[in-house]
Amino acid sequence: MNVRVGILGATGAVGQRFIQLLDDHPTFELAALTASEESAGKSYREAAKWRVNTPIPDDVASMTVGRTHPDDVADDVDLLFSSLPSSVAAEVEPLFLDEGYVVSSNSSNDRMAEDVPLTIPEINPGHLDLIEIQREERGWDGALVKNPNCSTITMVPTLAALDEFGLERVNVTTLQAVSGAGYSGVTSMEIIDNALPHIGGEESKMETESRKLLGAFDGSEVTLHGMEVAASCNRIPTLDGHLESVFADLADEPSVDEVARAMREFPGIDLPSAPEQLIHVFDDPSRPQPRLDRDRENGMAVCAGGIQETTHGVKYNCLAHNTIRGAAGASLLNGELLVEEGWV
Amino acid sequence: MNVRVGILGATGAVGQRFIQLLDDHPTFELAALTASEESAGKSYREAAKWRVNTPIPDDVASMTVGRTHPDDVADDVDLLFSSLPSSVAAEVEPLFLDEGYVVSSNSSNDRMAEDVPLTIPEINPGHLDLIEIQREERGWDGALVKNPNCSTITMVPTLAALDEFGLERVNVTTLQAVSGAGYSGVTSMEIIDNALPHIGGEESKMETESRKLLGAFDGSEVTLHGMEVAASCNRIPTLDGHLESVFADLADEPSVDEVARAMREFPGIDLPSAPEQLIHVFDDPSRPQPRLDRDRENGMAVCAGGIQETTHGVKYNCLAHNTIRGAAGASLLNGELLVEEGWV
Amino acid sequence: MNVRVGILGATGAVGQRFIQLLDDHPTFELAALTASEESAGKSYREAAKWRVNTPIPDDVASMTVGRTHPDDVADDVDLLFSSLPSSVAAEVEPLFLDEGYVVSSNSSNDRMAEDVPLTIPEINPGHLDLIEIQREERGWDGALVKNPNCSTITMVPTLAALDEFGLERVNVTTLQAVSGAGYSGVTSMEIIDNALPHIGGEESKMETESRKLLGAFDGSEVTLHGMEVAASCNRIPTLDGHLESVFADLADEPSVDEVARAMREFPGIDLPSAPEQLIHVFDDPSRPQPRLDRDRENGMAVCAGGIQETTHGVKYNCLAHNTIRGAAGASLLNGELLVEEGWV
Amino acid sequence: MNVRVGILGATGAVGQRFIQLLDDHPTFELAALTASEESAGKSYREAAKWRVNTPIPDDVASMTVGRTHPDDVADDVDLLFSSLPSSVAAEVEPLFLDEGYVVSSNSSNDRMAEDVPLTIPEINPGHLDLIEIQREERGWDGALVKNPNCSTITMVPTLAALDEFGLERVNVTTLQAVSGAGYSGVTSMEIIDNALPHIGGEESKMETESRKLLGAFDGSEVTLHGMEVAASCNRIPTLDGHLESVFADLADEPSVDEVARAMREFPGIDLPSAPEQLIHVFDDPSRPQPRLDRDRENGMAVCAGGIQETTHGVKYNCLAHNTIRGAAGASLLNGELLVEEGWV
Repeated sequence: MNVRVGILGATGAVGQRFIQLLDDHPTFELAALTASEESAGKSYREAAKWRVNTPIPDDVASMTVGRTHPDDVADDVDLLFSSLPSSVAAEVEPLFLDEGYVVSSNSSNDRMAEDVPLTIPEINPGHLDLIEIQREERGWDGALVKNPNCSTITMVPTLAALDEFGLERVNVTTLQAVSGAGYSGVTSMEIIDNALPHIGGEESKMETESRKLLGAFDGSEVTLHGMEVAASCNRIPTLDGHLESVFADLADEPSVDEVARAMREFPGIDLPSAPEQLIHVFDDPSRPQPRLDRDRENGMAVCAGGIQETTHGVKYNCLAHNTIRGAAGASLLNGELLVEEGWV
Repeated sequence: MNVRVGILGATGAVGQRFIQLLDDHPTFELAALTASEESAGKSYREAAKWRVNTPIPDDVASMTVGRTHPDDVADDVDLLFSSLPSSVAAEVEPLFLDEGYVVSSNSSNDRMAEDVPLTIPEINPGHLDLIEIQREERGWDGALVKNPNCSTITMVPTLAALDEFGLERVNVTTLQAVSGAGYSGVTSMEIIDNALPHIGGEESKMETESRKLLGAFDGSEVTLHGMEVAASCNRIPTLDGHLESVFADLADEPSVDEVARAMREFPGIDLPSAPEQLIHVFDDPSRPQPRLDRDRENGMAVCAGGIQETTHGVKYNCLAHNTIRGAAGASLLNGELLVEEGWV
Repeated sequence: MNVRVGILGATGAVGQRFIQLLDDHPTFELAALTASEESAGKSYREAAKWRVNTPIPDDVASMTVGRTHPDDVADDVDLLFSSLPSSVAAEVEPLFLDEGYVVSSNSSNDRMAEDVPLTIPEINPGHLDLIEIQREERGWDGALVKNPNCSTITMVPTLAALDEFGLERVNVTTLQAVSGAGYSGVTSMEIIDNALPHIGGEESKMETESRKLLGAFDGSEVTLHGMEVAASCNRIPTLDGHLESVFADLADEPSVDEVARAMREFPGIDLPSAPEQLIHVFDDPSRPQPRLDRDRENGMAVCAGGIQETTHGVKYNCLAHNTIRGAAGASLLNGELLVEEGWV
Repeated sequence: MNVRVGILGATGAVGQRFIQLLDDHPTFELAALTASEESAGKSYREAAKWRVNTPIPDDVASMTVGRTHPDDVADDVDLLFSSLPSSVAAEVEPLFLDEGYVVSSNSSNDRMAEDVPLTIPEINPGHLDLIEIQREERGWDGALVKNPNCSTITMVPTLAALDEFGLERVNVTTLQAVSGAGYSGVTSMEIIDNALPHIGGEESKMETESRKLLGAFDGSEVTLHGMEVAASCNRIPTLDGHLESVFADLADEPSVDEVARAMREFPGIDLPSAPEQLIHVFDDPSRPQPRLDRDRENGMAVCAGGIQETTHGVKYNCLAHNTIRGAAGASLLNGELLVEEGWV
């Protein structure tokens, strides 16, 4: 039985990824596309400047784009994916939630709100139960679930695997791809033969979202994980795939092999878009590399490598595809979890 | 009065930078060029595949290249700069030292040897006095001084400035330019749309050399600085300029302003190629950037920016031109110090 | 019924593409891998530095690599693909041909030899009959067929489509990807923020191979096509996909629409790896682009766009994936044609 | 005696180049800066997002930016350089011309107007006399001179040198740097690992401007040169420096040496910013290259190389720095010519 889904903000870079990922999805049927006023009423082919390297699916190309408003989305759409700019999302998502839609959102607003589940299905699926509190407090018939920032999601699965060793403190430096800033976010004059040592707001997202994701949920609230996180975020001349260098202080003193095994054996989840193995661990210290490894398991795997002991714990690298695992794929997987858990 | 200098390994990437930097030098006169057997006997124009973006100085172009052996270097050459591959340097540098030449070397061999000064003139000029011990122990008439690795030299001036606040521990991640690997070190297929999370040997260099540079010298030996350093080294698609992200744990709790001031006011040194201000500190968090800032003070300044407090100290970025401040310029400056201090 | 195939020079960049393309091939079964002496005896996983962005097929990874010599290739291998350096190929290919192997070769030696078919299956399949003359003259039991250079093959299908309008003269400038030079052919220092206006030997290949491909075969010899071709070849910082700018003088004065239609309707061929449509023509003048369009039809299509009339004919752009349609895929398709035509 | 100059559109990419080039100019004194309404009233440091790799000159940084209107520019400013967007320039330049200012403009509007000199000082300085006709027809007290498009100016000096051999026809393909599109003109997502085979309007500029530049002026009008020009313009991932591949049909049959000599000996002009040698010709076929050669003679030289005979004439490459020789430096040189010829 199919689930009818829609995309809020369907013409942008993440919106295009949603369309790519929903093509041939086993259970989701794309039934609604929304965008800004200028695009409303046009066919998707006209409205979107399509830039990913597979052609627009024919049936999607001829769909008519609506305004991003409940009036323009059919009532029988069961689940909405949102990749709106966060300022727009903050205004518009509540309209849909009032009307009873379930929204799986990649937008950054409300990620740290106490009654909004911030979820990676393999990491903290139980946080979804915050929806009950959310409905009570906000009076929504619908439900809102958020996925974390792309740079957070790249690191958190590996931290979850380390937590058995007593995760105390994390210093992380990112080497982020330009696609994370959207299609026009980084100009070529800025980045060719260069690197940009600052991404506004990104560091605090990593520092807070990671602690919520690994936090304990007691049925009424999430207690942030006790680890300290300090992040330094950089943009480099790479198209897709965030590479991150992590220094993790641990209470225990695991060997490199123990750490590698904990990552490799970290359990996945049985959902249509989930990777078979969540964390791919490389023994070759020159891997993972963005271009060679970002597409593992259709871009839904997280990669790790270069694990070495330090005086206080371990250092290692991790990598994920920022617009798939870190954005559209993250929302999609949360949508699949919402269906699986009966919220849709 | 001029000093007659020579370059060992004059045709390589760092050798070409030496020639560029020695052009119009106020006191050094280029008098000898050596390279491998195949190049010996040719004019420099024939022997070198010149690739820097200023033309070969005419007088250098017509000089004859000799073998890298004392027999091929005139006796009246006072000072040699070495940018030989470290395996070659390990064999050949002692031949010159036996013959009484003073060698300022960028090659990585012997940097951590107890009787070899590893020197940045603004940081630890006093370590030069190890030369006396070196001469005793090795029976050399000459003198050998080394400069640190390019990634070390980018970070150490800022660490020296932080030392007044009780420097305890450093986690550093590098975003290094391809020129650091030499002209053919990184292929285009490896690095376009990519990053390489591993540079063989680089991490341990940063972890040990930095502690020697900041170590105390009591007249007979250098005691390594007590800080712990863990490094993670990455190559990115940038031509020149290493950008580094530093997390420094400090005993004290200085404000951002105090840290910025300590860096800005860190004293320089009065030598011909030294920058007027050693550390340029940016308030704009989007700086320093490799392409925009690597050429400050002819590539001899170190830049810092993005200073923020963390729970345990500070985080910030630093940058230097890796083949100037981090290689040829580093050796040149050590050469100027050797002259100033009377060793030449 | 399966054809047992082998790859000569299996560890290089084109060799790796062969393995990628042969994975899941409907009729070809990979049965032999050869490489240089140093690789011989190792498993393919050990011997090859695998760099394409899909994992090595498991069954190939465990195959043992042999020397590139008939003694190391089983007699029941029916068809060999060669991606050897041309100097090696010139020595080794005849050994295999003497022993009766059929060789479909991407190496540039002997492409212009009068008795060697230089073939693109959609363009000049009939030239295969040169094999009879070849066998007579050389006394080979096997057969040798060559595919053209990657820059030639990008342009020739569009020229073939223009031939009905009286093709008289071609000026072509290429913007070629770095992969065309092999994995280590272009260093990062050479190409970042740069372009290289010279590729040794490439221009004459385009100027001569294109005339042989479009030449008439009368059963005994190929007469070169009468058009004049002048080529200017450049390397740019792109990984895969050669973009070419063509100015074609024509005897007739076709409209843009007539030219576009001639290209779109140019007939393909019914072989397993052939594209459904040989030439994809874009109306959007900003296409084709290397990154967005090189993978059309699994990298086997040729793209064209920007068609405009000039005083003497037309100008337009064309594009193909240089290591698939322009190298490994070209040899593979020739191999499929050899089977189809009964030469294997 | 100094000339007081101003810059219209001083905050943009070309405006910043003007400031860089005017720093330490022997006779020009920067006295006025204008920009859009939002910037007016601010200091230049505040108004401009400075991005070139030398610091803002201190005296310029503290200058106040005015609106781009004659009311905001002091009457004693003698000469204005304009790098306004062409639509803005079309409205605003006439206001200044009415008020009697002399304007040397890089903006593309009116370049082909019959009474506007389109000038490269070394090529067609005599066209300046069109100013008399311009004043008559338009009733201006001032004077307007334009320089050609950056891609035109790269090619035209070499064509001027070829004209003695009977220049009949030109096919030219460009490989243009991203800076030609302005700071935000090309996004990183568009150009990394890619090339863009279309630059709107660029081809027709090359095809027409080149014929006006080489046209004959009889004292009343310019007759376009009779050569036919067809251009194909491409953007590649290079920061600065347009590389162009030219096929030129000639009536005569000069040798490569004769062509090289004609280019090398093409006369320059004696103006402060003019290069000593207008065209640098390389014998090494791998040159010129954008990164290595764009800065020759402070970015004001044109480079050529790879000269080869073809059936109809010659093919070769040429290169110039597109934002110096091709934009700000071009206007500056025209300004120097205007002063020299007594128009200022």
